[in-house]
Amino acid sequence: MEAHPWCETPLRVRYKDTDRMGVVYYGNYLTYFEIARAELMRTLEYSYRDLEADGYRLVVIEAYAKYHGNAQYDALLRAKARVADVGRVRLRFDYRVGDQGGRLLVSGYTVHACVNADTRPTRIPRRLLEAIQGN
Amino acid sequence: MEAHPWCETPLRVRYKDTDRMGVVYYGNYLTYFEIARAELMRTLEYSYRDLEADGYRLVVIEAYAKYHGNAQYDALLRAKARVADVGRVRLRFDYRVGDQGGRLLVSGYTVHACVNADTRPTRIPRRLLEAIQGN
Amino acid sequence: MEAHPWCETPLRVRYKDTDRMGVVYYGNYLTYFEIARAELMRTLEYSYRDLEADGYRLVVIEAYAKYHGNAQYDALLRAKARVADVGRVRLRFDYRVGDQGGRLLVSGYTVHACVNADTRPTRIPRRLLEAIQGN
Amino acid sequence: MEAHPWCETPLRVRYKDTDRMGVVYYGNYLTYFEIARAELMRTLEYSYRDLEADGYRLVVIEAYAKYHGNAQYDALLRAKARVADVGRVRLRFDYRVGDQGGRLLVSGYTVHACVNADTRPTRIPRRLLEAIQGN
Repeated sequence: MEAHPWCETPLRVRYKDTDRMGVVYYGNYLTYFEIARAELMRTLEYSYRDLEADGYRLVVIEAYAKYHGNAQYDALLRAKARVADVGRVRLRFDYRVGDQGGRLLVSGYTVHACVNADTRPTRIPRRLLEAIQGN
Repeated sequence: MEAHPWCETPLRVRYKDTDRMGVVYYGNYLTYFEIARAELMRTLEYSYRDLEADGYRLVVIEAYAKYHGNAQYDALLRAKARVADVGRVRLRFDYRVGDQGGRLLVSGYTVHACVNADTRPTRIPRRLLEAIQGN
Repeated sequence: MEAHPWCETPLRVRYKDTDRMGVVYYGNYLTYFEIARAELMRTLEYSYRDLEADGYRLVVIEAYAKYHGNAQYDALLRAKARVADVGRVRLRFDYRVGDQGGRLLVSGYTVHACVNADTRPTRIPRRLLEAIQGN
Repeated sequence: MEAHPWCETPLRVRYKDTDRMGVVYYGNYLTYFEIARAELMRTLEYSYRDLEADGYRLVVIEAYAKYHGNAQYDALLRAKARVADVGRVRLRFDYRVGDQGGRLLVSGYTVHACVNADTRPTRIPRRLLEAIQGN
């Protein structure tokens, strides 16, 4: 099976995102991953907001980040996400955050379980599956 | 009318709270205010969590902070809150965040409106009023 | 003297920005103010990053926010900033954060003191003054 | 070789830490890991602040979190950290965040590289090694 395509989002580093080392705090990359994931779902024409409105949620069950370089205040980054793996209930996204020059700063992944309104694990909704497969 | 007493909470500055200036990011003091406010309500024996469980919320309608000094990473701060003013629907809290040596770093206030589950403005619940007056 | 013009920046509400009330946490608007202020300075062709590179900093000495409405997850907001007042050392910015339909959500201001590399108060650099006056 | 002992830190969930799902945002656990790590180093009598003052830094090169359960607003959590592995330059910490009743919510690890003031990889300082081995 071929890999799903990357979706890239531009992202400006805020002063708030930096720490006293002068670079983006390590935990904030999980927020950058969220932004890239949200934009990917928007391009799939099934935004995360819509998915929640339909009574589903994708709860995070694993998150991993590998740090290759640092991002400075005001840098314009490129955050990329793609669907890496789709199961019945679980979904994995891959991420790559790089700088303007194409240098990779952080890579990683998150694994999510689809749950319904009662937070019970449930099958990934057909609409999301079709959006991913058509991508 | 006498002023209500201060409630003081210790608070350790996290690396996450600092920015590339090496000190606590200005917006994070509103989080420190929240912590002091939550501890004050806990000492009033009507925690904010309980108030929400009773169907009320105190939505913020104004927030002000004045910055007198900086806090460094790992500093042990003292965040103080007190009830400053109580209306029918509105409530004002004052704050003072200082360092270990008693130096004032940030002072400020927040004004809240009490709302019910439908987010309609509503009278401050009697239980909270009594807790404040008995304080 | 005429007021300085507003600079508007689009801003997407992140999941991270929301709290359990389902709307943007009150303290996060100070981050939105920062974003609007940074974009305003960029349009003045003297970005805050450049100002810091020149050995200056604009430390916050006051911040105020008034909350008129709530912003939901994924909403596309418009954050506006303008220079409100310029002194020898101090500078005041005004802010307005609204939604797509033009509804005002939060207004406010910040007051900053210009400091040099030793964190001593210092005159606002001529380059910034000229950029503001030419604006 | 025996495992190093856990160091446990109490931690109150802030309103700021929650998201619109009503629970702690997934990325904030990396901040909780930071808090547990900082307290562990403090018990080793070589606080991270002191280590930085000595010209060293422990830059994060990997971070992983596995989510077993959710934490609600105002919950009093227990964040534990221990040294998991010590190399010449690299150091790994393990984490476990649980609730009051002992239920595990999030586990994970971070891998750090020791760098000097020029951000060059450097041997972990003897003082830290001895603190860890004496622990």
